Amino acid sequence: MSGTTTSGAVGSAAGEPAAGGEASAQDALAVLGMVAYLELAAFSRLAADAGLAPGLGQRLELSGLARQSLDHLDRVRDRIEELGGELEPVMAPHAGVLVEFDTRTVPSTWWERLLKAYVGYGVADDFCRALARTVDERTRQVVEEVLEGEVHTDLVVRSLAQAAQSDPTLASRLALWGRRLAGEALNAVSAVLDAHPEMRPLLEAAMADERGADAQQRLFALLTAEHSRRMGRLGLAA
Amino acid sequence: MSGTTTSGAVGSAAGEPAAGGEASAQDALAVLGMVAYLELAAFSRLAADAGLAPGLGQRLELSGLARQSLDHLDRVRDRIEELGGELEPVMAPHAGVLVEFDTRTVPSTWWERLLKAYVGYGVADDFCRALARTVDERTRQVVEEVLEGEVHTDLVVRSLAQAAQSDPTLASRLALWGRRLAGEALNAVSAVLDAHPEMRPLLEAAMADERGADAQQRLFALLTAEHSRRMGRLGLAA
Repeated sequence: MSGTTTSGAVGSAAGEPAAGGEASAQDALAVLGMVAYLELAAFSRLAADAGLAPGLGQRLELSGLARQSLDHLDRVRDRIEELGGELEPVMAPHAGVLVEFDTRTVPSTWWERLLKAYVGYGVADDFCRALARTVDERTRQVVEEVLEGEVHTDLVVRSLAQAAQSDPTLASRLALWGRRLAGEALNAVSAVLDAHPEMRPLLEAAMADERGADAQQRLFALLTAEHSRRMGRLGLAA
Repeated sequence: MSGTTTSGAVGSAAGEPAAGGEASAQDALAVLGMVAYLELAAFSRLAADAGLAPGLGQRLELSGLARQSLDHLDRVRDRIEELGGELEPVMAPHAGVLVEFDTRTVPSTWWERLLKAYVGYGVADDFCRALARTVDERTRQVVEEVLEGEVHTDLVVRSLAQAAQSDPTLASRLALWGRRLAGEALNAVSAVLDAHPEMRPLLEAAMADERGADAQQRLFALLTAEHSRRMGRLGLAA
């Protein structure tokens, strides 16, 4: 990572005519660093889920999804390097970002675990996507491609929706669990914003077109709407 | 998996002129199933190790090694399918083979964990390599390629050897741990052979050129020698 300040000077960092030059490269690296860490965390989590899967087929499927997270991480690394950064120092400030969240949301069943993967980390992905709105075109593309179809949507939606439909008690327990996950996920986003004041301007810019009192409230409204949409896909009350 | 018996009839299963026909395809599938399961187990273990790594660099390195295990698994799957088998049913009989071993060898430090990865699972790899001696040429090649340089040799040897050299107390503790791991690994191999009597003829054939009273003793002598070689590379007493 270069030691340049975030002056507004227009430059062509990484040989690419970015709108904001150096400052925008720093912003892009901040977002990429967070995405990189989230992919590594997703890898660890999916691998752990795989180890606890009730059958060999699901274990293989989840292991394959864990591998995809590392493939995503490679693409993020490539973009970081194109921007003149290095993976480790760029992602290091975000290491451990989910520890508090994970400690506060320990799933007690396989279904809770699956739902956490889908709606809990879904919030983190939406947060990254939102922040990436105003970074350079190429970086935004990478972030969106990497996060698209994230968190093993098919497997999770299929089996969770089926289970919830056939068992109303499970469905209402999972709806409750989903609300708890969303609340804790928003707390985690707050903590990230508190710990990284350098992200505030990026957030302000990204939320310029959203309605709400301030940037954080707009972000939370957006994240909550996406969460509700996700719960709706599972047939669960948000 | 086909439901054929292991008659000695010479056939050209999977369109390949194998020496023993159907019987040899069944033997090849038995070995491949075990290797496949060991790769999946290696994936889970390396991913778990990655999550516990003391630094981000090691976490990334171990995660990458976990991914390699799944790449290996893909190659084994390809060969299984070439032989007319299917991954899940072929590997299912070996699922859980390491559970007892893992329960009996819980590492209490990061160093013990690394050593377990190298010498504990090294025994399992050697066992597969030994069994693969008499299966068809192409299967043997796949098994050898997949197990070659297994268990993240470089990372482990480098850091373990350095640590042991600079700390004699650690070195003697690890030497003791290595002996315990080897003993438990040999117990695990015995358990596999007891649970899979169909592997006995394969073992007899594979050990024909080794010295020893019976096939299992020959195998154990071979596995012990390989274990000593591995400990030697680390500068530890076997």
